[in-house]
Amino acid sequence: MDLASFIEHTILKADCSLDEIKRICKEATQFNFPIVCVPPFYVKSTFELLAEIPTKIATVIGFPMGYSTTAAKVEEIKRAIDDGASELDVVVNICAVKSGMWNYVRSDIDSVVTAAHLKGKIIKIILETGLLTDDEIRQLCEICLEVKPDFVKTSTGFNGEGATVHTVERLKAFLHNQIKIKASGGIRTKEDALRLLEAGATRIGSSSSVMMMND
Amino acid sequence: MDLASFIEHTILKADCSLDEIKRICKEATQFNFPIVCVPPFYVKSTFELLAEIPTKIATVIGFPMGYSTTAAKVEEIKRAIDDGASELDVVVNICAVKSGMWNYVRSDIDSVVTAAHLKGKIIKIILETGLLTDDEIRQLCEICLEVKPDFVKTSTGFNGEGATVHTVERLKAFLHNQIKIKASGGIRTKEDALRLLEAGATRIGSSSSVMMMND
Repeated sequence: MDLASFIEHTILKADCSLDEIKRICKEATQFNFPIVCVPPFYVKSTFELLAEIPTKIATVIGFPMGYSTTAAKVEEIKRAIDDGASELDVVVNICAVKSGMWNYVRSDIDSVVTAAHLKGKIIKIILETGLLTDDEIRQLCEICLEVKPDFVKTSTGFNGEGATVHTVERLKAFLHNQIKIKASGGIRTKEDALRLLEAGATRIGSSSSVMMMND
Repeated sequence: MDLASFIEHTILKADCSLDEIKRICKEATQFNFPIVCVPPFYVKSTFELLAEIPTKIATVIGFPMGYSTTAAKVEEIKRAIDDGASELDVVVNICAVKSGMWNYVRSDIDSVVTAAHLKGKIIKIILETGLLTDDEIRQLCEICLEVKPDFVKTSTGFNGEGATVHTVERLKAFLHNQIKIKASGGIRTKEDALRLLEAGATRIGSSSSVMMMND
């Protein structure tokens, strides 16, 4: 299995420097990672750094809390696409989920999916499964089956537990293979990655990708 | 000393529910906290909950990473003010600081300060001191002395170390008493709060405010 082809080479810490972004881009070329995932602030520089190679850019929206307003998320998406992002990883409004405001949750997801799809871009809805009950995950998957984002993504890596085999298996069952799954959050080894792919993920987001390839 | 009058009663976790917001508002009335600090998503509900009492609302922008674009931060500010926020706590672009892109850092701060002040609102610039060197903190304070936010705030509480007496003393020295200081992040006891006020802070942001008052 060509593990590298499933990996989004990721750097999202609050204090990453342009030099680290440059390193990430070099490593993506070297190891053939198809996508890098960088903060919104760096999308433009990353687009310039990758101008000559096919590596794509993902970035994060409403990250990692998910409680910014829908309008703010949509503005972030538009800006990120203008700057060169091909894929948008957007956190659901976990607060609204916890308050049982399902109409808001649905409308929030619908708005961000529309904003991305109108420009022909890939969108991933981050559920933050580590903070959710099984029933909340199921309801979010039902909304996603209607609204049709390209991916459901497990976690931000900043709140609660990250991706687990159990969660990916649950998502696979709830999504009936109609929406793809990105596993992320705390994935550090090649073994971790392979187990999550086997469970049903088709993308792996990790900051430990190079270590993984050298395992 | 009337400790309560310095406290911003805060709830900012990713999964807080409307019930928790209602509790925060009740406690603010009960203990005479002048301000509550809530996620952007809840500003509107909080405004309705507090309609009959003078408690003000603060919210957070670009939180807690600081690396959303300036345009996204400004959009969040406008929306929060429309929803009823009186005070905006905005995270600096730590990535830009770490990359030495000081023109960007300055312009980002300038834009958010202008957006708040145009509407007559209070703005606090969160430095996230736990991730910064002493020299980076000094340079940020110099920018703030020019751009004139109402407060410099120490920390988000989500990245690195929170408020310390040492940091507040440094900020006081750098800011020459011209800009007020809000201490936040990891402040759990009455003793913590009193020490930080003595060091020069004039606001305390905490999720443990009620515990503090019962100390």
